[in-house]
Amino acid sequence: MSGERLAYFNGELVPESEARISVFDSALVYGDVVFEVTRTFNEQPFRLREHMERLYASMRLAEIDCGLTIDEMEAATYETIAANHGQFSDGFDFQITHNVSPGPLSIYRSIFPEGLRPTIVINCFSLVGRMVKLGPQYRTGVHGVIPSQRAVPAQFVDPKVKSRSRIYYIKAEHQAHRIDPQGWAVLLDGDGYIAEGVGSNLFLVHDGTLYSPEGRNILRGVTRKCVLELATDLGIPVLERNLEPYDLLNADEAFFTSTSTCIMPMTRFEGQVLGDGTPGPVTKRLMQAFNELVGLDIVAQAEAGAAHVAKLEAE
Amino acid sequence: MSGERLAYFNGELVPESEARISVFDSALVYGDVVFEVTRTFNEQPFRLREHMERLYASMRLAEIDCGLTIDEMEAATYETIAANHGQFSDGFDFQITHNVSPGPLSIYRSIFPEGLRPTIVINCFSLVGRMVKLGPQYRTGVHGVIPSQRAVPAQFVDPKVKSRSRIYYIKAEHQAHRIDPQGWAVLLDGDGYIAEGVGSNLFLVHDGTLYSPEGRNILRGVTRKCVLELATDLGIPVLERNLEPYDLLNADEAFFTSTSTCIMPMTRFEGQVLGDGTPGPVTKRLMQAFNELVGLDIVAQAEAGAAHVAKLEAE
Amino acid sequence: MSGERLAYFNGELVPESEARISVFDSALVYGDVVFEVTRTFNEQPFRLREHMERLYASMRLAEIDCGLTIDEMEAATYETIAANHGQFSDGFDFQITHNVSPGPLSIYRSIFPEGLRPTIVINCFSLVGRMVKLGPQYRTGVHGVIPSQRAVPAQFVDPKVKSRSRIYYIKAEHQAHRIDPQGWAVLLDGDGYIAEGVGSNLFLVHDGTLYSPEGRNILRGVTRKCVLELATDLGIPVLERNLEPYDLLNADEAFFTSTSTCIMPMTRFEGQVLGDGTPGPVTKRLMQAFNELVGLDIVAQAEAGAAHVAKLEAE
Amino acid sequence: MSGERLAYFNGELVPESEARISVFDSALVYGDVVFEVTRTFNEQPFRLREHMERLYASMRLAEIDCGLTIDEMEAATYETIAANHGQFSDGFDFQITHNVSPGPLSIYRSIFPEGLRPTIVINCFSLVGRMVKLGPQYRTGVHGVIPSQRAVPAQFVDPKVKSRSRIYYIKAEHQAHRIDPQGWAVLLDGDGYIAEGVGSNLFLVHDGTLYSPEGRNILRGVTRKCVLELATDLGIPVLERNLEPYDLLNADEAFFTSTSTCIMPMTRFEGQVLGDGTPGPVTKRLMQAFNELVGLDIVAQAEAGAAHVAKLEAE
Amino acid sequence: MSGERLAYFNGELVPESEARISVFDSALVYGDVVFEVTRTFNEQPFRLREHMERLYASMRLAEIDCGLTIDEMEAATYETIAANHGQFSDGFDFQITHNVSPGPLSIYRSIFPEGLRPTIVINCFSLVGRMVKLGPQYRTGVHGVIPSQRAVPAQFVDPKVKSRSRIYYIKAEHQAHRIDPQGWAVLLDGDGYIAEGVGSNLFLVHDGTLYSPEGRNILRGVTRKCVLELATDLGIPVLERNLEPYDLLNADEAFFTSTSTCIMPMTRFEGQVLGDGTPGPVTKRLMQAFNELVGLDIVAQAEAGAAHVAKLEAE
Amino acid sequence: MSGERLAYFNGELVPESEARISVFDSALVYGDVVFEVTRTFNEQPFRLREHMERLYASMRLAEIDCGLTIDEMEAATYETIAANHGQFSDGFDFQITHNVSPGPLSIYRSIFPEGLRPTIVINCFSLVGRMVKLGPQYRTGVHGVIPSQRAVPAQFVDPKVKSRSRIYYIKAEHQAHRIDPQGWAVLLDGDGYIAEGVGSNLFLVHDGTLYSPEGRNILRGVTRKCVLELATDLGIPVLERNLEPYDLLNADEAFFTSTSTCIMPMTRFEGQVLGDGTPGPVTKRLMQAFNELVGLDIVAQAEAGAAHVAKLEAE
Repeated sequence: MSGERLAYFNGELVPESEARISVFDSALVYGDVVFEVTRTFNEQPFRLREHMERLYASMRLAEIDCGLTIDEMEAATYETIAANHGQFSDGFDFQITHNVSPGPLSIYRSIFPEGLRPTIVINCFSLVGRMVKLGPQYRTGVHGVIPSQRAVPAQFVDPKVKSRSRIYYIKAEHQAHRIDPQGWAVLLDGDGYIAEGVGSNLFLVHDGTLYSPEGRNILRGVTRKCVLELATDLGIPVLERNLEPYDLLNADEAFFTSTSTCIMPMTRFEGQVLGDGTPGPVTKRLMQAFNELVGLDIVAQAEAGAAHVAKLEAE
Repeated sequence: MSGERLAYFNGELVPESEARISVFDSALVYGDVVFEVTRTFNEQPFRLREHMERLYASMRLAEIDCGLTIDEMEAATYETIAANHGQFSDGFDFQITHNVSPGPLSIYRSIFPEGLRPTIVINCFSLVGRMVKLGPQYRTGVHGVIPSQRAVPAQFVDPKVKSRSRIYYIKAEHQAHRIDPQGWAVLLDGDGYIAEGVGSNLFLVHDGTLYSPEGRNILRGVTRKCVLELATDLGIPVLERNLEPYDLLNADEAFFTSTSTCIMPMTRFEGQVLGDGTPGPVTKRLMQAFNELVGLDIVAQAEAGAAHVAKLEAE
Repeated sequence: MSGERLAYFNGELVPESEARISVFDSALVYGDVVFEVTRTFNEQPFRLREHMERLYASMRLAEIDCGLTIDEMEAATYETIAANHGQFSDGFDFQITHNVSPGPLSIYRSIFPEGLRPTIVINCFSLVGRMVKLGPQYRTGVHGVIPSQRAVPAQFVDPKVKSRSRIYYIKAEHQAHRIDPQGWAVLLDGDGYIAEGVGSNLFLVHDGTLYSPEGRNILRGVTRKCVLELATDLGIPVLERNLEPYDLLNADEAFFTSTSTCIMPMTRFEGQVLGDGTPGPVTKRLMQAFNELVGLDIVAQAEAGAAHVAKLEAE
Repeated sequence: MSGERLAYFNGELVPESEARISVFDSALVYGDVVFEVTRTFNEQPFRLREHMERLYASMRLAEIDCGLTIDEMEAATYETIAANHGQFSDGFDFQITHNVSPGPLSIYRSIFPEGLRPTIVINCFSLVGRMVKLGPQYRTGVHGVIPSQRAVPAQFVDPKVKSRSRIYYIKAEHQAHRIDPQGWAVLLDGDGYIAEGVGSNLFLVHDGTLYSPEGRNILRGVTRKCVLELATDLGIPVLERNLEPYDLLNADEAFFTSTSTCIMPMTRFEGQVLGDGTPGPVTKRLMQAFNELVGLDIVAQAEAGAAHVAKLEAE
Repeated sequence: MSGERLAYFNGELVPESEARISVFDSALVYGDVVFEVTRTFNEQPFRLREHMERLYASMRLAEIDCGLTIDEMEAATYETIAANHGQFSDGFDFQITHNVSPGPLSIYRSIFPEGLRPTIVINCFSLVGRMVKLGPQYRTGVHGVIPSQRAVPAQFVDPKVKSRSRIYYIKAEHQAHRIDPQGWAVLLDGDGYIAEGVGSNLFLVHDGTLYSPEGRNILRGVTRKCVLELATDLGIPVLERNLEPYDLLNADEAFFTSTSTCIMPMTRFEGQVLGDGTPGPVTKRLMQAFNELVGLDIVAQAEAGAAHVAKLEAE
Repeated sequence: MSGERLAYFNGELVPESEARISVFDSALVYGDVVFEVTRTFNEQPFRLREHMERLYASMRLAEIDCGLTIDEMEAATYETIAANHGQFSDGFDFQITHNVSPGPLSIYRSIFPEGLRPTIVINCFSLVGRMVKLGPQYRTGVHGVIPSQRAVPAQFVDPKVKSRSRIYYIKAEHQAHRIDPQGWAVLLDGDGYIAEGVGSNLFLVHDGTLYSPEGRNILRGVTRKCVLELATDLGIPVLERNLEPYDLLNADEAFFTSTSTCIMPMTRFEGQVLGDGTPGPVTKRLMQAFNELVGLDIVAQAEAGAAHVAKLEAE
């Protein structure tokens, strides 16, 4: 690894440490900033276009006009990736993050002699650090717990808009960790239905059918959609419907999905073992199919990443 | 005016334009940042301690440990004000903003060779720009309108915690401006009660009594508390209770309060005239009492500010 | 046009101007009156039986026994149409309205020496007047806006019962017009789902699938059902499900349906352009299929109607 | 009794039987009509001005401009009363009803050659017929029952606006009569709190304190306000607060209030006896005080009325 | 019939009258006890395994570890049945009830010198007594009525967990009987959807399709599942969806299902006749299919049971 | 200690171990049983009459007619206490529990040859066992935590009725213990307001005022009422109002009340220290006043109890 990681900032490439947003920007004044996180596999961004389409859908809802077409945004993304070539050549892949806000509030215009314009930041970050924890979890599965914090209903703040106004995620995480230091929050919505994890979607398997919450009080994840497609391809029946803790506690298997972790088995829920306490057969089939789709063994990569970091730290 | 405005940033004074927060900071990743806005009158901060107490209450709920005691925070504030001495000596006062987040996420620690620590930013900004619009509005009153966006109920994201996760404020403002280009949003909560404005509180007068919504789905404003005290001192009966559009539409008078505008009369609501369409007598008594309390004629200052800017722009 | 328009009133044909209901009638005391509006195409009533079945379903829920069988009601309808023969022979078709209430309250029986009986009114009215506005709108599409007024949830007053207790429709319209003078209200229900328009149903098209809200907090429109059937015949996938503003704002196309307007494209929503801002291809296919079904070019008729009125007014 | 009862209809006095509203009027199309019922005592209208003020508050919420000032409306009322002089000279008093709508919809303008204008109807009706039933009930008290129909929450259709969109009242009455042929409906609101009766307000007495539901999901009755004032004058502690079936079932006493019945004791609730099953002491004190206020013995009048009708029918 | 009926109590067979649970048991302290009721046909338990699986799902949610495996529980059940052999040999079948609680609270351990352990009770009871009432009802159908008591939403107490904390069932029954002495309660959930009866599920038939509420705020009945399967086998289209009183009142047919009654037609609802007022054709087909499945004519058995009891009582 | 503890069971005194209720009793079938727990101080029952009044209010709501007057119930209580004289003469006091159900279901009448009648159980139990844990907790205070289980809203199952249908209490406790092995559950109601603990009420102190939740979604505790009275006597301002986690987390002090623990300080909440982490001054004043009222030092007694048990166990 050599050189310096660079971030795209309003048309320019700046050092990653300069990817900073003014406190006068609507992004910080109101949490008025939408974003995307895209993952690479073998250093190629996965479903970038789909992420960009969701980014533009978020902007539409948030009434942000960023000034770039979706094609220009995609081009800027590839430019940013290219500029960081060699920074992540360790076989551990990276994530690409887009942040877009309407820019500084007009009342603060005097602070910005260069004029007011939307804020666009694109940056890349190695996933190897995350793998330290994830590596072993793919084998053991994680523990789902229900925090008292509820998912904000879409009629108040729509989670389908991938915005940064998500302080309740942090609250849910604090609570989840008090319940179980290894706990992953399973947020219920205002009606008591299972919504989502913190930045992840949920699935369960019951009698051979794959279930996931309706696309309502959740972020409609790109990986979630991918898993639904894979299941259909594999002939696994799929249903999107309202799910409750009852359903999850009596499920045969369950797992989380997200861009960075892909598919993460859940083997305990609310203090009880799910199935036989190990990742289930349907989950494993889907993980295998996902590996094939992306051309990479996710678990092996994560374990290699964990080992890599351990070695570095031991040195 | 000479020199440069400075902001406090984690113990150092930096140019205002450097008051920027990393995209790897929890403040931007989750909207996980609490804040305060304090106003000066005659360049002295008004009820700074009260603002600091609310800031620490917000941190407590958000589980942010900023590393400073409340006394240290207050001292840092005065230090920042002192550093900007002369920047705002135009008789138009300024606002002091505190932003506090837990700092960058630990997974991004490699980006911060100096180590991870909470983010504290304090900055000052002249109010003269705001006065351009406010100046005439104090005389005519503003127009209240109900956007379809509702206030987020406290059980999901507590508005009593003054956090930046408020993208719904922007949505409410976009809607309010479509209803009436001069419209100020009056947000209803999930039960249909009047909650608050965008960054302001609401009051109405009916049959000589002053009413304000219960301190539930609202920010409990410092100016709001101040007005309740002034009313009590003036012998005006005061009630905090659930208020509905019915009550506001049949009110004799109404007004918004906020730190920067203090007391702003509302003279129309939902397309209809309130009272005789001008700021009412109780509202004016309270504005007068507020002026006396802070030792300044708010309206005169705003009008002078508007004139000042107009003159500058004409030059 | 010659003679006088007649209305059916409790078994008799009276001049249209005499189609009046006593203020002592439950219809006016409680809004306790159900109704139907049926449209003609080429002067033949369209799906009259279906409208009559819904009328009797409404009566059943409202516990109104009107004293006529459904066959008798249908016969009375044809009698009323016949009595108005020649009144609407201008090629612009008309609507037939049924109003049915339980009649005057029994406490007011002394006012009605003829005895108390249910009130049944059937009348016809030319659509040409409506076409003045609709004519151009079919080409440009209309603007959907969300008023703050919510649709009343079915558990309180069931919108599937086509009753006249609908003062909230008027409130929604007042608000919609303040947002956009050309705005058509898109009412959200108590959960924030899209319910219906004012007297109309909603559809959207996304990725080639036609979506409409579940038949819950809406009137289950006859035209709505007709469009669902047409779509199925055309091989367009159809889904009735919970829809949110997010879905409508990211739809490729959208339209309203109602008895009098049939299919009306929506080309803007909440201040933003839908698709390319013109009626979309699926919408147009459905409009074309509807024309074929009813044996009439709806848009051409409306434009002819608009021209007809313009000519009359110019004379 | 001689001559004919007359009603005020848009500036003219017409026979009562002509107090009819067109089916093309917004009153019937949308239930878009507000009203008031005022009672006389000794043939003098009671608190007419208060009723008129509420009428104008209702119009304001419903955005109806009736074209008359409140003073003109009051004058028209007295004119109507005068025109009916001698019609009710039987010592049994009468009620005055105001109905006000925005008039026919503009699309129906061709039906109204005289032009479109708001509809105002004022009429008088003897209370003697009602007394037949009420006479004995004042002594025995009535039976409160909870129908499954809930009161519509104010955020959907505000009951403080006295409009005719109240088909749910009829539904509640049908249900109440199935529970108990003598049952008076006690409507719960969407949260399960006691709201109101059908056109009446509720009170209960517990440990010497008089309670009534908060003025939220109810009509704020003129008689209700009167009773609250009388109680205060009598030194009875008064609290407006959320009340639940638990509170009513464990109350010592309870009663309904309305313009026409004034104060009606409830002696059973949900199948169980309240107190000792007869009107309680606080209720009786308030009835006595009410009699003194209005200069009439309400119960005696009702019993005389019942006897009067019985005699007429026997003849 | 000879000998004595025996119940299984924590591993022992005791006389039925000794099937009693201590007031110090969590079952009585908190209603913390789950149960199942299984029916025999021709003295063979029907779908016992399915009932046992639901029992263990209930225990899982209630966090009760009963100490027996599901196979052991099944074996204990057969042992109990065998012990009662000859007690029910009257051709009228019986029900088997399982009650399982975590046992006495630990604070009461001094009362239980034998130590604390979970409480398991299994008992059998003849259905002949129930048949007295049911016999004629299968022919006439029963009357559905809506009590004001709502079904408790699953997010508060999940009805899918078959627990004894169901005091609201009794409340619903008291109310239903006040509405109609023959009334069977149809509980609405918190959203106003039809949930279930008291210990039974609901079905309706409309235009040839069989509908039942979604498996959410209901007990997911074993008989319900059985009927859904039978309908599918018979080629009757089946839909589980949100149903409202509107749907039931306009249904062609309706019926309840439960373990002990199997399929019970509903022929009136909310005071109105359903269909032609007799059990409908689809209902009868399903009853017939059910008879074939269980090898018994349910209605004939019930009528024989009723006659049997009548004869005994006459003796 | 000698002899045997006896319980009152339907008019007879039976050994405590025989205080068992049939599984055919409505108490177990539906959780249809109301109860009271009364504490002694110096072996005298405290506010027994108040507990009996609440018991009869519960019965009224549950529509249970137990067959005894309140005076007879009180007499039976004293009889039971007398029968256990000498059993608790260790200075540690005891609790008296009343359980009342309508008795066995009528369908099970054949099991009860003695006939069906309501079930009434009264028993006494020493508090010394509880003191083992409570002893030290009075000094350190306990930890409040919010489980994801919500308090059931009163409109579904009224907590003011002290019934045994409370399986959600157990669920809340399981969750609380997973969050913190020392955690006491603080239940939120459906609106997110603080309701109560598991069998206890909540208080907080802020700026010298004592707050407790409104008497709505809670049991209105006898000790709660007692503390409100004591506070008033001590001149401490008292407010019953909606409280939220925000309020509790920013409180100066907090405590639980219940019959058996009296007043128990809370010194942590949601993982954070309240005040200085020890029982606060207002809490201690109230504990002191409570001691004086009951003529006993509660904390000293508990500590003596803990020591007593420790000594016994050591022997």
